[in-house]
Amino acid sequence: MGGDHGPSVTVPAAVSFANSEPNAELVLVGKEDAINAELKKLHCTSHPRITVVHASEVVAMDDTLEIALRRKKDSSMRVAVNLVKAGQAQACVSAGNTAALMAVSRYILKTIPGIHRPAICGIIPNQKNAPTYMLDLGANVDCEPQHLHQFAVMGSVLVAAMENIPRPTIGLLNVGEEDIKGNDVVKRTAALLRADHDKGVLNFYGNVEGNNIFEGTTDIVVCDGFVGNVTLKASEGLGRFVKNVLAAELKSSPLNMLGALLARGALKAISRRINPSRYNGASLLGLRGLVFKSHGSADKYGYEWAIKRAYDAANNDVLSRISATIASLMPQQEMPAEMTDSGQMIDLSEQKTA
Amino acid sequence: MGGDHGPSVTVPAAVSFANSEPNAELVLVGKEDAINAELKKLHCTSHPRITVVHASEVVAMDDTLEIALRRKKDSSMRVAVNLVKAGQAQACVSAGNTAALMAVSRYILKTIPGIHRPAICGIIPNQKNAPTYMLDLGANVDCEPQHLHQFAVMGSVLVAAMENIPRPTIGLLNVGEEDIKGNDVVKRTAALLRADHDKGVLNFYGNVEGNNIFEGTTDIVVCDGFVGNVTLKASEGLGRFVKNVLAAELKSSPLNMLGALLARGALKAISRRINPSRYNGASLLGLRGLVFKSHGSADKYGYEWAIKRAYDAANNDVLSRISATIASLMPQQEMPAEMTDSGQMIDLSEQKTA
Repeated sequence: MGGDHGPSVTVPAAVSFANSEPNAELVLVGKEDAINAELKKLHCTSHPRITVVHASEVVAMDDTLEIALRRKKDSSMRVAVNLVKAGQAQACVSAGNTAALMAVSRYILKTIPGIHRPAICGIIPNQKNAPTYMLDLGANVDCEPQHLHQFAVMGSVLVAAMENIPRPTIGLLNVGEEDIKGNDVVKRTAALLRADHDKGVLNFYGNVEGNNIFEGTTDIVVCDGFVGNVTLKASEGLGRFVKNVLAAELKSSPLNMLGALLARGALKAISRRINPSRYNGASLLGLRGLVFKSHGSADKYGYEWAIKRAYDAANNDVLSRISATIASLMPQQEMPAEMTDSGQMIDLSEQKTA
Repeated sequence: MGGDHGPSVTVPAAVSFANSEPNAELVLVGKEDAINAELKKLHCTSHPRITVVHASEVVAMDDTLEIALRRKKDSSMRVAVNLVKAGQAQACVSAGNTAALMAVSRYILKTIPGIHRPAICGIIPNQKNAPTYMLDLGANVDCEPQHLHQFAVMGSVLVAAMENIPRPTIGLLNVGEEDIKGNDVVKRTAALLRADHDKGVLNFYGNVEGNNIFEGTTDIVVCDGFVGNVTLKASEGLGRFVKNVLAAELKSSPLNMLGALLARGALKAISRRINPSRYNGASLLGLRGLVFKSHGSADKYGYEWAIKRAYDAANNDVLSRISATIASLMPQQEMPAEMTDSGQMIDLSEQKTA
């Protein structure tokens, strides 16, 4: 039901995905009438692998966490996450309110033992024509070194499973490459990652800078959710800026228009390659269940991509691989009482997500 | 002497600037031989408004602060900043090592009374075809609310003076627009800025997000140096990525090449408009003297732009305007002992700059 377009995008994407993946089963959760109307438009009211589960409420993009968690107990988001919790679905995909999706998922699914805080892991296209996985993109605006350390471990397992890279490289986002650069949290995180690297557990590249995200220097870039969120949004903003300037300048004279017409294949390819939403579908990592967040503005193609990512994650057993790695790496880690995921709502009010 | 190109860029830029501004006097500081060789190439060995001051040493791009501050006491950077201190120059421009320039400037010039920490204020092009001033871009990797507050005040005075905007708008970089978003530092900073807004002292817009930088939502964007540095470098990285993709795709077929040839005017305009270094010349704000930092990779055009910015800042009396505003706004502010600028080097080792 969520995102800028709701069922008019999510339902066609789901149908298209079901048709392209003969082993996939899809459960469409939300207002029955709205979903069935879209299915009818697609002449797909009785697909053998698509079922509809009714949920009477919808979390709005501007709902507070309080409303999403306490008032709308029959929201499509919550019902979908409950299906994951109950084992009736192997993953959940939503284009809705990110903060609400994280809060609901965390409340219902809880975190993996050893993980203090879940993180949002997104994918950014890079110059090597490959994906850069980046986390956290906004779930945690304040992070301690142990959180960033856990993000690195989770990201590493995710990339190994999804991209079939046995030892993906991890970069720690910083203001310079040298060890002496950065603030205290980053320096202490680097020490943790270096120790894991020396044990052969993680493939820690070292510090990376903002430009390295797009250069594809490392498979994974680790940062706190404040920096990650601002950087992602700035990049999206610059991407739109470039697109608008491109469109305006190429229309500025008949000669430019003719040139653009001739080179339209190249211009489309450019637009596709630099689109930060090209790899749609961010993972909410660290939960006892797979939850994926589509960009709210995703079109059918983008949303289908997010479903595919969720499907691949389930098929590649990402969840148990993360749990096993965390358990083996951090068996003895003391977890401060206020960081355990007791299911209380106290901490969630502090979980700001964009 | 600094930057990627040294005197082969800085000297021609200085000569060109001197010729375009009949009231400007330029002092070229560095290795006499190298500078004179460049002046000779330009047939400009006896320009009436250009003098050369010899400095026997050069701070290298990878020199530590220790070396820049304690070993190279006759560096071009230090001699130039000393000219500002002595009142023999009204501003200093350098393309050299940013961290060293900040440390040397801070050591020699000291900070303005009431300013705890200097900041780097750069300019980013936005969709409104106007500049977005952003600070801090990397001088301070950890900031308290009072630091961000001071950055906002200094940025506001700078923009008012340089852009002739009486009440420039100030945005606080955050992960969302709502007041409840962000970490503790950002929330407390917002409270300080809101109080100044209510007093009519600052024009505080509220929180802005990463995309707003390029949308030109506010004249000024305030953030800590970690976030600012990562965001700027990520944007530069994305800019280069776009440029490379553009070049590659437009060469991918004869048709695309023809199109690019016809539209080359538009493509040049695009490249110019999205270039983050278009407005070259970042201000080191908060010092008792004007110091400007050119991008290390600046060409002659870019470096000349940085000189022009320094010249305009001196002509517009930016320094005394900042000092007066700070004095009137924060006369009674208690300055913790460890934050006063006593000229000791202790704190500087913690001043990490990219």
